[in-house]
Amino acid sequence: MNTYSIGIDIGGTNTDIGLVRDDGHCVAKKNLPTGMYFDVELYVSDICHRIKKLMFENGVDAIDGIGIAAPAGNYYTGCIEGATNLNFKGVIHLADLFREHLNVPVVISNDANAAAYGELVYGGAKGMKNFITFTLGTGVGSGIVVDGRLVHGKTGGAGELGHAILIPEGRPCGCGRKGCLETYTSATGIRRTALELIEATPDYDGPLSKVNPNDLTSKMVGDAAKAGDALAVKVFEMTGYWLGIALANAVAFSGPEAIFLMGGPVKAGEVLMQPVRESFEKHLCFVYDGSVEVRVSELPDNDAAILGAAALTKAK
Amino acid sequence: MNTYSIGIDIGGTNTDIGLVRDDGHCVAKKNLPTGMYFDVELYVSDICHRIKKLMFENGVDAIDGIGIAAPAGNYYTGCIEGATNLNFKGVIHLADLFREHLNVPVVISNDANAAAYGELVYGGAKGMKNFITFTLGTGVGSGIVVDGRLVHGKTGGAGELGHAILIPEGRPCGCGRKGCLETYTSATGIRRTALELIEATPDYDGPLSKVNPNDLTSKMVGDAAKAGDALAVKVFEMTGYWLGIALANAVAFSGPEAIFLMGGPVKAGEVLMQPVRESFEKHLCFVYDGSVEVRVSELPDNDAAILGAAALTKAK
Repeated sequence: MNTYSIGIDIGGTNTDIGLVRDDGHCVAKKNLPTGMYFDVELYVSDICHRIKKLMFENGVDAIDGIGIAAPAGNYYTGCIEGATNLNFKGVIHLADLFREHLNVPVVISNDANAAAYGELVYGGAKGMKNFITFTLGTGVGSGIVVDGRLVHGKTGGAGELGHAILIPEGRPCGCGRKGCLETYTSATGIRRTALELIEATPDYDGPLSKVNPNDLTSKMVGDAAKAGDALAVKVFEMTGYWLGIALANAVAFSGPEAIFLMGGPVKAGEVLMQPVRESFEKHLCFVYDGSVEVRVSELPDNDAAILGAAALTKAK
Repeated sequence: MNTYSIGIDIGGTNTDIGLVRDDGHCVAKKNLPTGMYFDVELYVSDICHRIKKLMFENGVDAIDGIGIAAPAGNYYTGCIEGATNLNFKGVIHLADLFREHLNVPVVISNDANAAAYGELVYGGAKGMKNFITFTLGTGVGSGIVVDGRLVHGKTGGAGELGHAILIPEGRPCGCGRKGCLETYTSATGIRRTALELIEATPDYDGPLSKVNPNDLTSKMVGDAAKAGDALAVKVFEMTGYWLGIALANAVAFSGPEAIFLMGGPVKAGEVLMQPVRESFEKHLCFVYDGSVEVRVSELPDNDAAILGAAALTKAK
């Protein structure tokens, strides 16, 4: 008989709630507009109402637990702590609030850690003991699994490789420092690289030159690169070069058997992955030669975040 | 009643063997010239002879085990694998060879991992679950403890932070790549920085200008810095700047509660530690503010390597 759990992906705009079967299939979903809520108790109450509906509509009597991926979600405390893009400020005891409505285990972590657990439980890392995931989005998130367990660190905030410094004194980062990985290899970083290259190439008249700079997205750059636009290809070569160094550095840390990449820019495919692999091999310390693969996440795009959240309920 | 274990530190030139009491006191030591041996069976036999003598001379009837810190020592296999500075080539089943002589548990790891266990069992990291050690020597070694256990990775070779790339396309490294941390912050890297600065400062007439460049050591630079020589102070400021970035990046990985520094250059004291801390605080991602200390190893200098090796017998 199948068992079920609930995965909740809290974003600044939307909250997605999914009913996940133990074989990794997201049976049904509902959502709710995070940004419309200013009272967290009402917010949790409305989510729990949807969970009960999801269960009822799908003939599910019991769930194993609820996994929540939330910005600044802390695995140890079950709290959201000072998330900058949510209306709920300060320290929110989210797990406790859920337990008031539903008497099941509730596990919270940040999105990037949830993604790593998703890969471990439902994706390409099944059975692996040591791997790392990088999620390229607005920022760069990472989740690190060592000996089969997620690395949370002393305070619950380990695995912030998007804020490891790649280029000392490099690009200014939103965190107040300079040269963080995410300023180069996030979707935002790719956009930034493209704008820099366009500005530095006055005679460029490819597809990206027709776009208002304010409207340019990393997806447009990816589409142009896939269509063979030389400037866009160059943007992904640079992105791959930077990301390859970061991946090689991550290997020097935990000696994993694989690194999984996920997120919007990864959908550009080989136009990104080939320069990533080239740079990775060039920058990998020889002691790791042949011991580690760079792979694309095997979680389905649409449900990756929900599956990651649900996988937290299986966390060790 | 006290218990005892044996710690063996294998270096290219010398092998140090120590009898270590469970309170972390190295009761007695012997050594033997590694470089004089070309037959590994004879080498192990001679070490075991010394172990028996150490036990006999100190009235110790039994030992808990033997811990061996060796270049390219692999924790998983108990082998030395292609150590470049030993006469014993290829894969050497060292643990097995010891067990033929002495019927006790034998644990092997590389020097840097042993140092981390030394700090955990006998030093400043007692009771800590998450910390990292950096050993500054000819190279830079590192040992990473997560949830109370050393990170070995898939192949046993995790924790090579000396070969994480600090400056892309930076100084050439002996490993064949460029910009590795150890080219900047090892004893060799400090020497290199000093020689570069001396060459770039034609009117420099401080104490280091009197030394033949071939004879210059990082210790001389440290002594000059402690005596107030501006150029030498600058060398340590640069070293501290680089090392601080590397420590901040390591924190972004595993979120430890402390980082311990050890090795020759650390003996320069505040002339190194102050710029390290300044750079660390400047480059640490804000989510870790106040959660992690940078400290000097609390293992006694003379016995640090032996204590680290002996601590491997307590490894989990």
